Amino acid sequence: MDEITKPYVIGLDMGGTNSVFGIVDARGNIVATTAIKTQAYPDFDDYVKASVEALTPIIDTVGGIGKIKALGIGAPNGNYYNGTIEYAANLVWEGIVPVSKKFEEALGIPVIVTNDADAAAVGEYTYGVARGMKNFIMITLGTGVGSGIYVNGQLVLGCDGFAGELGHLTVVPDGRVCGCGRKGCLETYCSATGVARTAREILAERNTPSLLRDMPAKDITSYDVYKAAIAGDAIAKEIFDFTGTMLGEACANFALFSSPEAFIFMGGLTKAGDLLMNPLRKSYDEHVLNIFKGKAKLLLSGLKDSETAVLGASALGWDNPPQPVDTAE
Amino acid sequence: MDEITKPYVIGLDMGGTNSVFGIVDARGNIVATTAIKTQAYPDFDDYVKASVEALTPIIDTVGGIGKIKALGIGAPNGNYYNGTIEYAANLVWEGIVPVSKKFEEALGIPVIVTNDADAAAVGEYTYGVARGMKNFIMITLGTGVGSGIYVNGQLVLGCDGFAGELGHLTVVPDGRVCGCGRKGCLETYCSATGVARTAREILAERNTPSLLRDMPAKDITSYDVYKAAIAGDAIAKEIFDFTGTMLGEACANFALFSSPEAFIFMGGLTKAGDLLMNPLRKSYDEHVLNIFKGKAKLLLSGLKDSETAVLGASALGWDNPPQPVDTAE
Repeated sequence: MDEITKPYVIGLDMGGTNSVFGIVDARGNIVATTAIKTQAYPDFDDYVKASVEALTPIIDTVGGIGKIKALGIGAPNGNYYNGTIEYAANLVWEGIVPVSKKFEEALGIPVIVTNDADAAAVGEYTYGVARGMKNFIMITLGTGVGSGIYVNGQLVLGCDGFAGELGHLTVVPDGRVCGCGRKGCLETYCSATGVARTAREILAERNTPSLLRDMPAKDITSYDVYKAAIAGDAIAKEIFDFTGTMLGEACANFALFSSPEAFIFMGGLTKAGDLLMNPLRKSYDEHVLNIFKGKAKLLLSGLKDSETAVLGASALGWDNPPQPVDTAE
Repeated sequence: MDEITKPYVIGLDMGGTNSVFGIVDARGNIVATTAIKTQAYPDFDDYVKASVEALTPIIDTVGGIGKIKALGIGAPNGNYYNGTIEYAANLVWEGIVPVSKKFEEALGIPVIVTNDADAAAVGEYTYGVARGMKNFIMITLGTGVGSGIYVNGQLVLGCDGFAGELGHLTVVPDGRVCGCGRKGCLETYCSATGVARTAREILAERNTPSLLRDMPAKDITSYDVYKAAIAGDAIAKEIFDFTGTMLGEACANFALFSSPEAFIFMGGLTKAGDLLMNPLRKSYDEHVLNIFKGKAKLLLSGLKDSETAVLGASALGWDNPPQPVDTAE
């Protein structure tokens, strides 16, 4: 019973700006936290050293490194198979970074890496609303749209560790230009930045009044659209209708793949609540294939927003998830 | 070592018209076959009785039922979890048919049921080009477009046993009406019937000459388009270009989900060979997300066309595939 002698895991939410660490128990309680500035360490060895220095005092509060089972890291372009971060545009380190190796050498405990959305899925499976579910799809609605998928109780990693890029489903052929170089990807419409783009498009097309006209169009954020919608602004409400409808149709297409028990949504855009979820549910029901109707639940994340990323990363440190199988390569 | 005392499985390819049985050894050799007319037995009990009568003499040729490990059945709307066929439009039996139960009672051996495309995937995994692959997607291009998906070396069945309906991905918003009641599904474009629809559309739009104008438009089949393309007909070649291009783009979207090692294509339409596969490969490379470029192979089925369905069904009878995990329900 390793959980008795080593009752904690560490989670690291590695973002472009901040790196947040949490020591977590088996029930998903964060018992201690610390943080460093990611960008302050252009040399990855310095980053590891600073991490260990920040971690040492909080590790001591739970009885030392002997009580820690593992370190789980959720990072942009994190690769579970290789223990690396590979070509992450939003991080200071270029190319392929051997993250697991460096942290294992520094801490002497197992280190597991994966990308942010997969970590979120592992977190929901371990501590959140997906406990007990074998088949579900996690959708993160932030600056982009990310996804983490469980099939048969296992994280879907694919042949290369990069599976689960549902934010790049083509939803509008020849539609909006995406950062990936393709056109019409889901995340150009249904992310926080997508909502702002929709606002600018609709405001430019119409002459009807809107609270959103009180600010320069280029400065509009999804939060501005949310505030305007709450205040009763018709165009702002229409923007959320459009976004939820498109996301519901995309989820109906995702159901074709794995017929999940649930879709779980998290990230900034979900703060819009029913403004987003009502049209999303309506559209999903309208578009999903008959044999799948009424089967998948559309849920919001069960984890506290500020803790989700650290919890998700930490969950990688327990034994069971994500149990990948090596590829035949 | 069950394979020594029980060295054979039976595969049943249950079609709307014919039901073909084969006794298969562990290497995928079909050692004996028989068939009955599916439609001749509107009562399922009579169908089972006729099946056993047809099977008995060929079972005797391999040493009797004691040598048979199991019966695997590939059927429209076959459900692995329930051992049933559920509301299959092309079969004579209505509602939910307890297929496994009835055949187990009649034969005294385990019976496993799944849908045709899943059976094809199990067949490729067991005997075909997908041997050793943990992540691949089987696409069947027949009257419709079916799919069977492997993730982490396991068949993707979903929460209800009906996962893998990729033929219903929306590829053209508000596009062609599909038999499923939705619009713009992949199979309205990239199936054999989709190719014929494309032919009728293009011939109606243009005035350019084509061999396809020598027959009534309503009678054109995908095989006619194939013959015309082989004879150098420009419009017929354009139809395959259009079909392959659309299928390649759809596969690029499927890769987002499970980052497979390979896509494997089978079914009538694949007889077009390079006419279909060249534009398909070109389009896939153009549309797939950068991180997936060059990773998935696009392959034709490695099984003999006439044997694929029976082999696929029989493969369900061996121990390992498809190892599903029960849902949390």
